[in-house]
Amino acid sequence: MSNEKVISDIEIAQKAALLPVGAIAAKLGLSEDDIEFYGKYKAKISFEKMKEVESQPEGKLILVTSINPTPAGEGKSTVTIGLGDALQQLGKKTMIALREPSLGPTMGMKGGAAGGGYSQVVPMEEINLHFTGDIHAITTANNALSALLDNHIHQGNELQVDQRRILWKRAVDLNDRALRQIVVGLGGPGQGVPREDGFDITVASEIMAVLCLAADLQDLKKRLSRMVIAYNIHKQPITVKDLGVEGALTLLLKDALKPNLVQSIEHTPAFVHGGPFANIAHGCNSVIATKTALKLADYVVTEAGFGADLGAEKFLDIKSRAAGLSPSAVVIVATIRALKMHGGVAKDELQKENVSALEKGLENLKKHTETIGHFNLPFVVAINRFSSDKDSEITLLKEWCQKHSISVSLTEVWGKGGKGGLDLGEKVLEAIQNNSGTFSFLYDEDLPLDEKIRTIVQKVYGGRHVEFSVKASQQLKQFNDIGWSHLPVCMAKTQYSLSDDPVKLGRPCDFTIHVREMKPKLGAGFIVVLTGEVMTMPGLPKKPAAYQMDVSEEGKAIGLF
Amino acid sequence: MSNEKVISDIEIAQKAALLPVGAIAAKLGLSEDDIEFYGKYKAKISFEKMKEVESQPEGKLILVTSINPTPAGEGKSTVTIGLGDALQQLGKKTMIALREPSLGPTMGMKGGAAGGGYSQVVPMEEINLHFTGDIHAITTANNALSALLDNHIHQGNELQVDQRRILWKRAVDLNDRALRQIVVGLGGPGQGVPREDGFDITVASEIMAVLCLAADLQDLKKRLSRMVIAYNIHKQPITVKDLGVEGALTLLLKDALKPNLVQSIEHTPAFVHGGPFANIAHGCNSVIATKTALKLADYVVTEAGFGADLGAEKFLDIKSRAAGLSPSAVVIVATIRALKMHGGVAKDELQKENVSALEKGLENLKKHTETIGHFNLPFVVAINRFSSDKDSEITLLKEWCQKHSISVSLTEVWGKGGKGGLDLGEKVLEAIQNNSGTFSFLYDEDLPLDEKIRTIVQKVYGGRHVEFSVKASQQLKQFNDIGWSHLPVCMAKTQYSLSDDPVKLGRPCDFTIHVREMKPKLGAGFIVVLTGEVMTMPGLPKKPAAYQMDVSEEGKAIGLF
Repeated sequence: MSNEKVISDIEIAQKAALLPVGAIAAKLGLSEDDIEFYGKYKAKISFEKMKEVESQPEGKLILVTSINPTPAGEGKSTVTIGLGDALQQLGKKTMIALREPSLGPTMGMKGGAAGGGYSQVVPMEEINLHFTGDIHAITTANNALSALLDNHIHQGNELQVDQRRILWKRAVDLNDRALRQIVVGLGGPGQGVPREDGFDITVASEIMAVLCLAADLQDLKKRLSRMVIAYNIHKQPITVKDLGVEGALTLLLKDALKPNLVQSIEHTPAFVHGGPFANIAHGCNSVIATKTALKLADYVVTEAGFGADLGAEKFLDIKSRAAGLSPSAVVIVATIRALKMHGGVAKDELQKENVSALEKGLENLKKHTETIGHFNLPFVVAINRFSSDKDSEITLLKEWCQKHSISVSLTEVWGKGGKGGLDLGEKVLEAIQNNSGTFSFLYDEDLPLDEKIRTIVQKVYGGRHVEFSVKASQQLKQFNDIGWSHLPVCMAKTQYSLSDDPVKLGRPCDFTIHVREMKPKLGAGFIVVLTGEVMTMPGLPKKPAAYQMDVSEEGKAIGLF
Repeated sequence: MSNEKVISDIEIAQKAALLPVGAIAAKLGLSEDDIEFYGKYKAKISFEKMKEVESQPEGKLILVTSINPTPAGEGKSTVTIGLGDALQQLGKKTMIALREPSLGPTMGMKGGAAGGGYSQVVPMEEINLHFTGDIHAITTANNALSALLDNHIHQGNELQVDQRRILWKRAVDLNDRALRQIVVGLGGPGQGVPREDGFDITVASEIMAVLCLAADLQDLKKRLSRMVIAYNIHKQPITVKDLGVEGALTLLLKDALKPNLVQSIEHTPAFVHGGPFANIAHGCNSVIATKTALKLADYVVTEAGFGADLGAEKFLDIKSRAAGLSPSAVVIVATIRALKMHGGVAKDELQKENVSALEKGLENLKKHTETIGHFNLPFVVAINRFSSDKDSEITLLKEWCQKHSISVSLTEVWGKGGKGGLDLGEKVLEAIQNNSGTFSFLYDEDLPLDEKIRTIVQKVYGGRHVEFSVKASQQLKQFNDIGWSHLPVCMAKTQYSLSDDPVKLGRPCDFTIHVREMKPKLGAGFIVVLTGEVMTMPGLPKKPAAYQMDVSEEGKAIGLF
């Protein structure tokens, strides 16, 4: 029941006795011919097998989301994995479906992102490093597109690309602030055409979103073809298809599209596949992994990035709409520590008992439960327990949930694995069984873009007004004229607050959301709506996690957390 | 006996019946526990197994090199693979050891680089695309170092890095001329420190050279630690160790260091591992692959980049010196077409009989045979036959070889696989058996840098003088003062001519080599000597090969040649 790191995640992961990935596949009814091995503990599912299982009945989908994240930590991935393990312990044929981690944060702040404690997916070092190369394939495709576009301009610019209006940026899967704004093509006529450019972190590349939303290889190619990369001198959009390189990009991404099979420490089969940013993109694992998991298991536990205002809304309005998914239940993760922060407590005061701050902070949780209600979905609140949680705080929390008729479970998956999530598992199964409602989207896709935004702001964020900048207003008109207004919107907003001001914790009211700019992502199939400052290339801190990384004499990874 | 592409390389490769890589490993006495699978037809050898075979006796090493390359094509990789297959047909336990292809040229000019016709390594699509991710790991390590260096400067610059004197460049495994000269860190104080930078193609990164010369994981880390990345404001070199990130880089490269096992179309086991540029680096596959192959097989056929003046000289003076290798024989590949070009024939006139041009062009071949003689090694000339070769030309060639007591073999490995190289195989075995000489380096490492350069220019290139630019002269003194003069030199020169002028074909005499600049590569353990213009980031042509690439409906690669 403790999240104190007496033993580190990597130590637990390295001590875990893994099953050969063939044995994990066998649990799902897959033979060794259905998978492609990447070492002993990782595999990809073949396209043939995915095609073959398409006619099988679908399992139940459980979405794990959270309150607005705080520096206190919520442990959403940990709960997702622990819940999967718990359902397996309860005798259910279960799969976990997660995003794959980006090397940028791994080498920067976090050191790893594959769950924690006894609720991890393994081999955690490989998942956190190059894994099966999916993200490298996306980086390569992204930058090949840039190189081919710059070469097109250099070789005569037949498409009349306006080099001041290029939307496509280069990418690297690292935190590298020096690449945010650059000038390329310097050095004279032999070195290309000078222009402003920049690098995004790869997980913010539209190609990542495209890969995660593609139904199959043909759909991947169609989506890549549609991506708008620039405007021409007549301000008309230029797509990948206009440039004629969708075949090459598809070829580069062919294997990356296949889901990666690994296991939890308790040998629950897990797909770890795709990892788009939850701000500039929709922030969930791939459609192809989720759908294949639903064919192979009776229960699939998956998660969406950031809090329910961002991740769950996009999971439900974007991913579920694109893929025809219909979740059966939602789990909202919170911790008492984080709720106290939402109630106004500073990070270094979290150890102290503070019932009134907790009560105030619960308003943030309340809003997210209402949001899930707007989608007509049953939910369970999962409190990820810490040893610092006080009895009085737990009592208050339980009373509060009872008062609001909210199903709540105290989980200890970090310290106990699936066993610590059995109660949560039972409550989720109960919620699914008792549910008689029908999942519905928050908005209709025929609504104009600004109405879609207003609906999300009012129903999901609890705000009052939406203010569009001059640029955003012009874009509303422009995008409508081009014929893009039927697309879902992908909100890019700070994850820390329901509002667009990261310091407004708890449950702010009556606020205005400021739309700064919009970005057409025709391949992904949505319009990104930027509110406030949104970072698509993180920087490194003063002492990056990389400084602690090493390899032992026996060749083992050191310094991933 | 024809290299006309009635059937393309990719068609031949895709029709080939591959053995599971476990069966290929078994030929070498390796069990499935000794290898790590990457799909069904690729595997890496475990560090444990490499350690275990260290005590086994070593096989014979055969180095394949060529005349100065021409646009007519020589087919060095094809002959290397064909010779390996021939030796296998002759009942010898054989391995092939090749470089892994870079995506840049694959997507730019060439479409692929895994041999040709019936002498290919397979699965050729995977080898030509992401393969096992080695090059992506190198790109990532290269750029992580850049990001960490720029972050160090941004966060206070404790090491006093002179940002005008940063040697380390970023890398991408693509042909992208727009990235040759760039400015990074623009956009204000939050975005890092503005400075000039540039991208090299990944295979030109020093990390590629380091990986290819490392004896093991510990040596890899030592070499990475030594890399000089910048000078400080006192003009003293700053290394990776000074920055303190050698552990993180080693961790990123841990799996990339393990050799990749694949097979030829005739199921000869092949390591395809490492691929440093042959100009800015030494241009051969990894030491670890070559040495492991020598422990696993009785005969190992390997190749070095470009002609014998560049690739073979560096293979022998740099790689063999660093790794304690001692080749048993050399094969010098030529074609009648290419020799005619060296004799002055234009590319579109090559179909026509031209005995006198051939005779003149043979002088180029002659020089390379003399070079191999300087190393005291036996050699066989392999003529890669084309259907356009005329009887009169073949007769002249044979007479010329007889006159100079040169062992020559006409090979037809492109069209016939190993069967087309049986005569070559026999002659190579004969050369090894009859050899009584002892391999020796061209120069002693204690010679001053300029004397090493002069030795190579006079003995290998057949030139007379070496002229140092003002900058190069200053560097000779500076490098001597710092204590780098004991290092081997890695010549960067045009591959097309023995001189530094790419249009001087055949066997130019009395020329001067102009040394423009030198670059310290302390991790690789050599000083790069730049003569003339040397490109470390290629550009794309008007119609890149990428435009023909695609994926079929069944998920097969299209458009790799």
